[in-house]
Amino acid sequence: MGLLVVGSIGLDDIETPFDKIQNALGGSTTYISLAASYFTGPVSIVGVVGSDFNYEHIKMLENHNVDLEGLQIVEGARTFRYGCRYHYDLNVRDSLFTHLNVFEHFKPVIPERNRKSSFVILGNIAPSLQLNVLDQLESPKFIVCDTMNFWINGAIDDLFKVLKRVNVLIINDSEARLLAKEPNLIKAAHKISKMGPEYLIIKKGEHGALLFGDNTIFSAPAYPMENIFDPTGAGDAFAGGFTGYLHKNRDFSFSNLKRAVVYGSVMASFCVEKFSTKGLEDLSFLEIHNRFLEFKELSSFS
Amino acid sequence: MGLLVVGSIGLDDIETPFDKIQNALGGSTTYISLAASYFTGPVSIVGVVGSDFNYEHIKMLENHNVDLEGLQIVEGARTFRYGCRYHYDLNVRDSLFTHLNVFEHFKPVIPERNRKSSFVILGNIAPSLQLNVLDQLESPKFIVCDTMNFWINGAIDDLFKVLKRVNVLIINDSEARLLAKEPNLIKAAHKISKMGPEYLIIKKGEHGALLFGDNTIFSAPAYPMENIFDPTGAGDAFAGGFTGYLHKNRDFSFSNLKRAVVYGSVMASFCVEKFSTKGLEDLSFLEIHNRFLEFKELSSFS
Repeated sequence: MGLLVVGSIGLDDIETPFDKIQNALGGSTTYISLAASYFTGPVSIVGVVGSDFNYEHIKMLENHNVDLEGLQIVEGARTFRYGCRYHYDLNVRDSLFTHLNVFEHFKPVIPERNRKSSFVILGNIAPSLQLNVLDQLESPKFIVCDTMNFWINGAIDDLFKVLKRVNVLIINDSEARLLAKEPNLIKAAHKISKMGPEYLIIKKGEHGALLFGDNTIFSAPAYPMENIFDPTGAGDAFAGGFTGYLHKNRDFSFSNLKRAVVYGSVMASFCVEKFSTKGLEDLSFLEIHNRFLEFKELSSFS
Repeated sequence: MGLLVVGSIGLDDIETPFDKIQNALGGSTTYISLAASYFTGPVSIVGVVGSDFNYEHIKMLENHNVDLEGLQIVEGARTFRYGCRYHYDLNVRDSLFTHLNVFEHFKPVIPERNRKSSFVILGNIAPSLQLNVLDQLESPKFIVCDTMNFWINGAIDDLFKVLKRVNVLIINDSEARLLAKEPNLIKAAHKISKMGPEYLIIKKGEHGALLFGDNTIFSAPAYPMENIFDPTGAGDAFAGGFTGYLHKNRDFSFSNLKRAVVYGSVMASFCVEKFSTKGLEDLSFLEIHNRFLEFKELSSFS
């Protein structure tokens, strides 16, 4: 059965030191499903937009074999909108505005035929909504979950419930330290693993990613990026590439999970090369595979 | 011919969140020569101490086949002393005091028979002293150099002269950004490579290290450390392990430089497991090799 993605869909205003863009396609669901679409399909999404959502975006997603049956379009209402400005070094961004709009009262409704989905990616939304999604599914086999500081600080009890039910948690290093209340990342990882997830992935931005599980650790390098154009969506592209690759081959050995982490990193590296979702819209599998080989070359020694 | 190390030798007062120690053996030369001693020998050092320097330390270095002919002992004067306190997360330290003592007027004098040294490690001392050392050598073949923010800010002209003459510069990420005046680490590396060094190594602490050269990049992982006891000397241990390994096999292929970077990382990981130089005093080559294999396991995928 298919791969289901639940999260936000939005329109973003993004400013970087290099350029700015308005009304750009954004949201975790969008980046995740595009990245996953290069490995498997159809990817089914559940989300909500307003009547201001651009038809071009819908067409683009459909061209990537994204199944939009679960997309609610609320007539007369506005899509979730987010604005941010990146600092000079692109590692820090200031939120300029967050207009929840249709997202404020969003209740994910999983279409009947998607309730049998065996693979689920819970994008970064309220843990209570993530739980609600899980409750609608019949027997998910592989659940990947993202979260953020906001929920760790504000909805920790629900988040703990989510963590007990997921196979993989993907968070960044500062989120891991916050969740575990532990500055040492390795100790933090061990503490988080005890909270439930079978595997934990800690993303470290320009320093790569760590995969914890099976009593072992894998350290994936970061692609050496000279020109990061827009970091937005990199973490979601990672989650989409990681899960899409696993959905394709259904091999849960640690050595295949390592490859999946690298494919996630590959998709994140493409994502940040262009504004908004543009870096994920026109890739070929050959490009993706070649970058995978570059990651290998970058980190291998004998 | 031999491996020559020039830098500081000191007595340190170190406070970490776990413990504190006074009058502990420290200084770049000390850590570098100990780390290198597991790969090659004798390692010759040039430095200065006062009559307060502990005979035990001298004996310990001699037991590691460290050649001390170039060690000046100034009777009636005190050894260079440094005190620091590490913060809770061990990534930041406050200097508590720096007493240069005998180091204030230190002029490195390379003993006659060490002037033919083919491998030289210039520890983190004033670039003018590093130049002075290079001027005393007959025909060094492989020069490895360390530096720090203090010299980048305060002695950049001399440092530029040094960089034109060295084969490898080893610095950390914040120093690389400062030296290149460029926040993007990959761009910074390219700028620094144009300043002279054939190879550049950027140490990223808990995130591993990057090797730049031969128009390619190698990303070495960091050893997952749950218990960092004392980060002092980790960078010097890295330089010693890296250069010691290369001195042993004289193979300057990029694939061997990659191995050398990992052996450097191995020695740094042992260094931080105990206070002062203790982590480098009682190792076996089997332990070192086994940790090398752990680094490989940690980062390999197919």
